[in-house]
Amino acid sequence: MIRRLTIATSKKAELQEITSQVRQVVGESGINEGVCHIFVPHTTAGVTINEHADPDVARDIMARLEVLAPAGGAYLHVEGNAPGHVKSSVVGCSLALMVEKGQLTLGTWQGIFFAEFDGPRQRSLLVKVVAG
Amino acid sequence: MIRRLTIATSKKAELQEITSQVRQVVGESGINEGVCHIFVPHTTAGVTINEHADPDVARDIMARLEVLAPAGGAYLHVEGNAPGHVKSSVVGCSLALMVEKGQLTLGTWQGIFFAEFDGPRQRSLLVKVVAG
Amino acid sequence: MIRRLTIATSKKAELQEITSQVRQVVGESGINEGVCHIFVPHTTAGVTINEHADPDVARDIMARLEVLAPAGGAYLHVEGNAPGHVKSSVVGCSLALMVEKGQLTLGTWQGIFFAEFDGPRQRSLLVKVVAG
Repeated sequence: MIRRLTIATSKKAELQEITSQVRQVVGESGINEGVCHIFVPHTTAGVTINEHADPDVARDIMARLEVLAPAGGAYLHVEGNAPGHVKSSVVGCSLALMVEKGQLTLGTWQGIFFAEFDGPRQRSLLVKVVAG
Repeated sequence: MIRRLTIATSKKAELQEITSQVRQVVGESGINEGVCHIFVPHTTAGVTINEHADPDVARDIMARLEVLAPAGGAYLHVEGNAPGHVKSSVVGCSLALMVEKGQLTLGTWQGIFFAEFDGPRQRSLLVKVVAG
Repeated sequence: MIRRLTIATSKKAELQEITSQVRQVVGESGINEGVCHIFVPHTTAGVTINEHADPDVARDIMARLEVLAPAGGAYLHVEGNAPGHVKSSVVGCSLALMVEKGQLTLGTWQGIFFAEFDGPRQRSLLVKVVAG
């Protein structure tokens, strides 16, 4: 079964932490041992894992991605969101996490982040927990 | 069961859309609910998801990756394909998609692309659909 | 079942090959057909697949990531490891490999590498092989 979550982003580009929402889906699945898949069905967004303790980490990541694909750069795609497409392919739109004793095996400092690269928008996120 | 697809690339570097080939494997698997894994067994290629409507998006992605690892840059690896190796690790060689009601849960604008970074060549792509 | 491996890295930043350790976990699982998941529970490390034959390939990858997120760059996060966090999100911390006839379906030139971006340290790596 796939659970669809709605994410409301508030900036042009941001990393929004979604760890608690994903943990809730894992808990409600009742699955003790398995894999938790996350999928972003958008082309100017992504999903990544990084430090959740200091929000400056997320800002630094977004700043370096901005250097890689700057807003003012030269692009062929004319909708103005070409940098968001580039960042989406660099960060990626799918993740596979592990579930053990009913919990995600995240490290102490790890949080899961929805990566918005062309917001603010209402976005979808798909979570699927599979036993195994 | 793993299905091996053959991809013939036609340029040094390109994103070639493979959505229909992957959809066909999903359909032939007969699996209604599950996960579709994609794996690229090469070190100068990758697989990514991005917009399929405007081919300029793919060109913009490749152009920014070229800035990250330029053909004329300084590399230790002397075969001339060092930039392709770098791009492969940035884009990644594996993806996990979701299958629901016998269909991939791709977003409206999402297509799956084989990323060629050292072509043209004949390449392999592995697709495995697992129920769950 | 999840297997936890310990990785001792020896440099500030390096790609350390872990293919044989992962192969061993696959062999010990006794699973013939399935998926091998790899997860790194750290925020300044990652996991990637690339060429194992020439160690210069790994060095070139690390060198280009250093250009993307240089040690001497300007960051908000003040612990000094901001570049490691950026590189972790670019390379990624999870991989899904395929298992066929009891073996990983790696290509001829592919090796699996633990990516250290803030070492040297003792690190963990989680490996989970699922039948299917």
